[in-house]
Amino acid sequence: MSAAVGTVLDARGNPAARREHILDAAETCFVRNGFHRTTMQDLAREAAMSPGNFYRYFQSKEALVLGLAERERQRGMALVEELEQAGDRRGALIGIIERYFLALSCETAILRLDIWSEATRNPDIAAMVARGEAEARAWFVETLAALATAPGCDPVALYEAMHPLMKGIVVGRALTPDYDPAPAVAHLLALIESGLHGSRPDADGTPDR
Amino acid sequence: MSAAVGTVLDARGNPAARREHILDAAETCFVRNGFHRTTMQDLAREAAMSPGNFYRYFQSKEALVLGLAERERQRGMALVEELEQAGDRRGALIGIIERYFLALSCETAILRLDIWSEATRNPDIAAMVARGEAEARAWFVETLAALATAPGCDPVALYEAMHPLMKGIVVGRALTPDYDPAPAVAHLLALIESGLHGSRPDADGTPDR
Repeated sequence: MSAAVGTVLDARGNPAARREHILDAAETCFVRNGFHRTTMQDLAREAAMSPGNFYRYFQSKEALVLGLAERERQRGMALVEELEQAGDRRGALIGIIERYFLALSCETAILRLDIWSEATRNPDIAAMVARGEAEARAWFVETLAALATAPGCDPVALYEAMHPLMKGIVVGRALTPDYDPAPAVAHLLALIESGLHGSRPDADGTPDR
Repeated sequence: MSAAVGTVLDARGNPAARREHILDAAETCFVRNGFHRTTMQDLAREAAMSPGNFYRYFQSKEALVLGLAERERQRGMALVEELEQAGDRRGALIGIIERYFLALSCETAILRLDIWSEATRNPDIAAMVARGEAEARAWFVETLAALATAPGCDPVALYEAMHPLMKGIVVGRALTPDYDPAPAVAHLLALIESGLHGSRPDADGTPDR
């Protein structure tokens, strides 16, 4: 994402816009150099702000990581709402999977991998990641339950089967420059379809009815 | 892994044993504090060596990451050989999955996540990760081809379907203190079984024969 130049012109004097602008700049820096190699000076420079002014908005790199994650969370909720208003629940489910896995950019995947790595040692980031995971899980389980077409469908078990596959797509996208998520997304969608029809993912391919 | 105290006594005067001892110490430090927060001084202290002596074995943190990955690779090859000699190929396949996913420790998973994160920005580490991935892929595809029970089995497509699931298990294990890999491993084994029988993972639960 190209950050600073575009938004700084609109951001003067408007704290919310300035905050957005700083988060864009931080995303650019973190993706390029990683969390640990990025300094507050780098971040202020990328945001085209003086360090003193920059510190008025964010006091630490960790605060920026938390801010980025919170923004990602709010964008996710807004997308869910938009998709649910635009059509049926199935459309929303497919739309979310397309947006978060099929259309996942390499930059977003790298940032997510970094945040997971950081979460293994930073309790605040771990708590934020856990909150995001719990919210995603709740939405998926509720949506799967609403879409189930057979009494044998277990939405919780189905989400547990989907979850590592979704994480693995992010890792593949971050690690592999020419990564094609399409086969893994097709597998994910097939898993959802058979799960909604009551098949268990560990049932060796035979429907559990 | 508790490193320094146990092995330092045997390591004096033996370069190979000293190298192993340093890699154990580095693993302990990297898991505890991460790659970026660990200094060469921390590593020398953990290995109970003087910095000068330590530098004779490894000149940089990156060299230690590469050394750890190379050791992991050699251990993997030795385990494959041992399992293949002890029994059939199916036993080796199951044994590798049990060892690398069902019995995966949180510490090993965290280290792997860090190495992936580092690989997105360090070409040497990226090349080493890519080499390990290619070797694992070649072994799995060859083993799946040997175990196929139906002409419809496509070992390459089957491995592509297994791969994100395996990556996702590592992420789950690194992020979640009480993570239980058993459901995801059961799903992985079911995927392998149905794939060997010629089902496609994206075939919506219906065998492709």
